[in-house]
Amino acid sequence: MRMPEPKAAVIARRDTIVRELKRLCPAPEAVIDGDDALRPYETDGLSAYRQAPLAVVLPQSTEEVAAVLRYCRDEGIPVLGRGAGTSLSGGAMPTADGVVISMMKMRDVLDLDFENRTATIEAGTTNIAITQACEHEGFFYAPDPSSQLACSIGGNVANNAGGAHCLKYGVTTNNLLGVKLVTLDGEVLEIGGKYLEPAGLDLLGLVCGSEGQLGIITEVTVRILRAPEGARPMLLGFQSNEQAGACVDAIINSGIIPVALEFMDRPAIHAVEAFVHAGYPLDVEAVLIIEVEGSEAEIDTLLERIAEIAARFEPAFSRISRDAQEAAAIWLGRKSAFGAIGRISPDYICIDGTIPTSKLPETLHHIGDLGRTYGLEIANIFHAGDGNLHPLILYNANAEGELAKAERCAADILKLCVDMEGCLSGEHGVGIEKRELMRYQFTAAELALQERVKHAFDREGLLNVGKVFPFDEDRPAEAA
Amino acid sequence: MRMPEPKAAVIARRDTIVRELKRLCPAPEAVIDGDDALRPYETDGLSAYRQAPLAVVLPQSTEEVAAVLRYCRDEGIPVLGRGAGTSLSGGAMPTADGVVISMMKMRDVLDLDFENRTATIEAGTTNIAITQACEHEGFFYAPDPSSQLACSIGGNVANNAGGAHCLKYGVTTNNLLGVKLVTLDGEVLEIGGKYLEPAGLDLLGLVCGSEGQLGIITEVTVRILRAPEGARPMLLGFQSNEQAGACVDAIINSGIIPVALEFMDRPAIHAVEAFVHAGYPLDVEAVLIIEVEGSEAEIDTLLERIAEIAARFEPAFSRISRDAQEAAAIWLGRKSAFGAIGRISPDYICIDGTIPTSKLPETLHHIGDLGRTYGLEIANIFHAGDGNLHPLILYNANAEGELAKAERCAADILKLCVDMEGCLSGEHGVGIEKRELMRYQFTAAELALQERVKHAFDREGLLNVGKVFPFDEDRPAEAA
Repeated sequence: MRMPEPKAAVIARRDTIVRELKRLCPAPEAVIDGDDALRPYETDGLSAYRQAPLAVVLPQSTEEVAAVLRYCRDEGIPVLGRGAGTSLSGGAMPTADGVVISMMKMRDVLDLDFENRTATIEAGTTNIAITQACEHEGFFYAPDPSSQLACSIGGNVANNAGGAHCLKYGVTTNNLLGVKLVTLDGEVLEIGGKYLEPAGLDLLGLVCGSEGQLGIITEVTVRILRAPEGARPMLLGFQSNEQAGACVDAIINSGIIPVALEFMDRPAIHAVEAFVHAGYPLDVEAVLIIEVEGSEAEIDTLLERIAEIAARFEPAFSRISRDAQEAAAIWLGRKSAFGAIGRISPDYICIDGTIPTSKLPETLHHIGDLGRTYGLEIANIFHAGDGNLHPLILYNANAEGELAKAERCAADILKLCVDMEGCLSGEHGVGIEKRELMRYQFTAAELALQERVKHAFDREGLLNVGKVFPFDEDRPAEAA
Repeated sequence: MRMPEPKAAVIARRDTIVRELKRLCPAPEAVIDGDDALRPYETDGLSAYRQAPLAVVLPQSTEEVAAVLRYCRDEGIPVLGRGAGTSLSGGAMPTADGVVISMMKMRDVLDLDFENRTATIEAGTTNIAITQACEHEGFFYAPDPSSQLACSIGGNVANNAGGAHCLKYGVTTNNLLGVKLVTLDGEVLEIGGKYLEPAGLDLLGLVCGSEGQLGIITEVTVRILRAPEGARPMLLGFQSNEQAGACVDAIINSGIIPVALEFMDRPAIHAVEAFVHAGYPLDVEAVLIIEVEGSEAEIDTLLERIAEIAARFEPAFSRISRDAQEAAAIWLGRKSAFGAIGRISPDYICIDGTIPTSKLPETLHHIGDLGRTYGLEIANIFHAGDGNLHPLILYNANAEGELAKAERCAADILKLCVDMEGCLSGEHGVGIEKRELMRYQFTAAELALQERVKHAFDREGLLNVGKVFPFDEDRPAEAA
């Protein structure tokens, strides 16, 4: 992917810039420069793309973030906010002339309000730390991306992160109440709060999922929820992807909303079984993991009702967990799946798109065709309940041309999602990975409008440059 | 409230403009002009403010809307989109130099997709018509503003409308999947769709609640839900607002989410009983109506659990409905409440603000003080579960100075909501009513940013002018 030409004049001023950043953020080790020290900041979870930044700064307060942003604006220096760097779309890859603002020193829990069921935390706080901070009172924070032990809540907001349990509880935007956002001008905006809804334009919804294009998030207020009494899954196996897909559809349409509804196809099942021996059936084409929650009696009733619905699709395999141990065994396979794929293939691309749930069987069929066309194995592991697909394309980066082939296959799968009336991004963001595909989803007028909205926040065009919006020779001048 | 000076040059061209609108929308009676014919368009539900527009046009298609918008942009004519005109904040009041685009001829149901649980309707479709269109398959559309028999879905989206049953199902933004939006430039944008989430900036969230500032919505795609097996309320009476408020808090914090949790105070109860004899207790300070839904067994269990929680707050009255007839009797009072207030007072202002639920008792106490200070009676009827207050200030418009006094009291109550870490708008929008109060909620930098975002859509500043954003001599020039 091409990136905007780095500004030579900025790079030439590197020493001055580092000195000034140290003045603005005077804590020890608050500014990182030097090639070795910058290496960890070259990339994020999309490690095929790498670029070291000019410098990294780790502010300790919103005021320091504001001071850094004002300085960068005045000097025309590109700026990139970074959480834990677990993004899968390259959204946190720096530019050679840019300063990375890492939020990793801002990890305080600022306010736990159990009466109003809210938590306010600094943006560098990990996702799991929110639940850890409130679970002693019986609360939890619902969205649970796979990276939840590492990823930061600021990054979750920037990418509108999801997770396996978002079918019932919604993704980040559904659990977000407010943010403190610092603009490129160094203005500190309080957007949203502990109340239901904003007056005026809903900037909170706009900031959520904006991938660092609008400002740097320093504080986040989220809804925390009462933890359920318990939760248990069942495991179903089917002779075809179509039957499994139709079963997903029937469950959702019955009005039952499971807390999770996960789908794995044959390549994924076999990889997982070889790795962790979770006891998944090997003679089926697809398995579904369906989790419900509530009291023991509610769980039993709901799992029974789901088993009745599933029976219409002739499952070849059915296992209902009866206790925590059996529940853990069923989840073991799903949770090990990405590792299991990594074990059988030197490299893989994890794709992220969404489709209407009724199109699951048809989409899976087309994805199979695409894999055969490209001669690449594709394992499908995804949040089926809300139509969020994560096909994994297996390839070998050391084989000449395989990465490029895998990327073309990934692009075709994402275009397929759009053709199915879906979207080319579910929960991983656009970043650099899907930047050029935005033209496939949106008209030129729609993209120009999105860029004008970015410009309303970032008039100098310095925030997370080269991401989200298509970047090539023909881009319309009026958008900037 | 002061409004922007109408453009005399536009008003002088009225005949030409009407002729051109008739050319762009050639259907019979598609353009309305003449003083008598324009009178119904002078005002909305906030009838204290009135102004006839230059003309009203009723397009029959998105293309006609686009043509009208392009024409108005080229000629510098202010434009206002209008649904059913049930807004309570004056958001649909025209300007003397402006064209009103009424959506009342665009009321078709375009697509019902029961597999994916979506409905796509034209913007002029009434809220209730969505449920009517899908209920034969066991579905319904959840948000239920009191005006649902009349109000349009386009207006619901523009105001992010709520309703009594939004505690469980969320407000419009939580049930909205996509819109077709026509910009002032006549570009037709498809924002969102049947899938989970957008790529790029979330313009859908931004459009929802934008009160006609960004474009004209012509089509809407919403989530439809399986109707529950049944629903029944209970009625509780308390000796103090504080006890009732604490009970609301305890129910929400128990993890039970009733489908509705409504609060009425003594003045409201007495007005209602005198009007419809609903059987509400007269010797209490506050009643709560708490509705749950599900199977008969689930309803019984939940209402029992709520009664146990409520017992801690010593209710002076408790009645659990056992069948549809008893349920209707309990709802009769709440549903007649606004009419009942209209019966005992010549005029009232219905306020709309939100607060964190834990602040309910304290807020009610302060509202009582404000009523005594101003010498005005205030009845409180509101969606207590999500902290959305609707205090009604009773006054007599024919008494010299009473409207102004009631408005000052209303402004003080809305400022109180902001002081309580709440918001000056819940579900009625800002419109003209709360325009100047935006300064109390937002900093100058926050307002300037909101105006820049509006400007990204409406570069000529012609859409629903004089609303939402504070308008006075000192407004910063840079915002425009």
